[in-house]
Amino acid sequence: MAGTDSTKPFAPSPGPAVILVEAQLGENIGMAARAMLNCGLTELRLVSPRDGWPNEDALTASAGADTVINNAQVFDTTADAVADLQLVFATTARPRDMTNRVITPSQAAGEAHRFINEGGSTGVLFGRESKGLKNDDIVQSDAIIMVPVNPAFSSLNLAQAVFAIGHEWFKAEASSDEKAADDLSMPKETRPANKAELERLFEHLEEELDASGFLHVAEKRPGMVRNIRNMLQRAGLTEQEVRTLRGIITSLVTKRRQ
Amino acid sequence: MAGTDSTKPFAPSPGPAVILVEAQLGENIGMAARAMLNCGLTELRLVSPRDGWPNEDALTASAGADTVINNAQVFDTTADAVADLQLVFATTARPRDMTNRVITPSQAAGEAHRFINEGGSTGVLFGRESKGLKNDDIVQSDAIIMVPVNPAFSSLNLAQAVFAIGHEWFKAEASSDEKAADDLSMPKETRPANKAELERLFEHLEEELDASGFLHVAEKRPGMVRNIRNMLQRAGLTEQEVRTLRGIITSLVTKRRQ
Repeated sequence: MAGTDSTKPFAPSPGPAVILVEAQLGENIGMAARAMLNCGLTELRLVSPRDGWPNEDALTASAGADTVINNAQVFDTTADAVADLQLVFATTARPRDMTNRVITPSQAAGEAHRFINEGGSTGVLFGRESKGLKNDDIVQSDAIIMVPVNPAFSSLNLAQAVFAIGHEWFKAEASSDEKAADDLSMPKETRPANKAELERLFEHLEEELDASGFLHVAEKRPGMVRNIRNMLQRAGLTEQEVRTLRGIITSLVTKRRQ
Repeated sequence: MAGTDSTKPFAPSPGPAVILVEAQLGENIGMAARAMLNCGLTELRLVSPRDGWPNEDALTASAGADTVINNAQVFDTTADAVADLQLVFATTARPRDMTNRVITPSQAAGEAHRFINEGGSTGVLFGRESKGLKNDDIVQSDAIIMVPVNPAFSSLNLAQAVFAIGHEWFKAEASSDEKAADDLSMPKETRPANKAELERLFEHLEEELDASGFLHVAEKRPGMVRNIRNMLQRAGLTEQEVRTLRGIITSLVTKRRQ
């Protein structure tokens, strides 16, 4: 549909980052960027785009959302792309064999909105066109967003998925007097842990579990590590709590070493 | 996003017809058909598609929504395409110099839903990619739908516009018999831990932390215990995860004892 009027001011608050993991076609990245800007989202992060970056097809397909494309940041891994974020959502079209909180786009938009208003940083992960996100990407997230669609034909075009979630964000922004419960009330002197701090916690724990023999069955190790990360991730830990947990791990193993 | 499961039954009630007026690219018609079926809509009507019909590009871009493409009906004029419909909406991205009722996609979905339940027939008009609907098309409609988007970048991809409206229709359909999300998606073989299991986990951990000296400052102990319980509590642990955590604690301290 036509109708852009660039004389109209729109000063979006810094919305969630859109993180496309191993997107395949530049055209799809471009259409996703267009969908983002339709919804007032401007921060695009790309994890290992298959056809490299920059990508001329992406710019063309963005249909004028050049600012989104030109400011896109590229990362090698999903972990790198979310390292500075405190609240991360993952999008999936089908239930996974993992224990995760599953929410709708409008619930996610509400949570992200409240979180950003309190100074937090958030992002949403989208998987590659053909296969979606891997479980190893999903464990980086705090909750899963499932877009309610026809269960007999649920495969969404990438830009469509971005729009489905971005549009709820835009509506939540537009009606920003709305408020709801369910946010984490948190002492003033702390803040949500970012993903880099969580990563160091996980590595610390896994190192000790390797040393203690808990992870000694090689073929089971990846699944066990994923499950442990997943359950701790879900707790929505603060930076202070991450330090407490690291203190606990150190304390439990220390006398062993002495 | 991946995830279509064709074993899942979905018997949509006959939703609104999607009427694409003078669509230009077959690819856009195909992507619109895919978006329709994502939302459980199956009735596609085409008014003078520029590149003729049938169109191979449309079938390819529909990504499996063949049934929508193959059953599309073609009309010479917008008037012909809406002749049998009783309630017609027109989509525009910008206000027109016409006196029309303007509603949101979710309002339109609600109205269409009630209307169809009473045996009525409805449809939604979408204009050509570059220019939108002509005023002569809009006068065929009972109300105008405007999708709320960034006013500084409001030009929606055709399939995106179809999805924005179809998705509200789908949600209105689904909410008639479905409860809200926010449940924990969980592997079948486990269940949420009960409070007794959590209590045993907490006592196990605190016993070891007393032994290791982590909780040795007596006046701080109650607050620390509360904080630790609080963060683990928040994770919504399953019974299996409680066992994993107890295994981790045992593993971390075991060699110390030996």
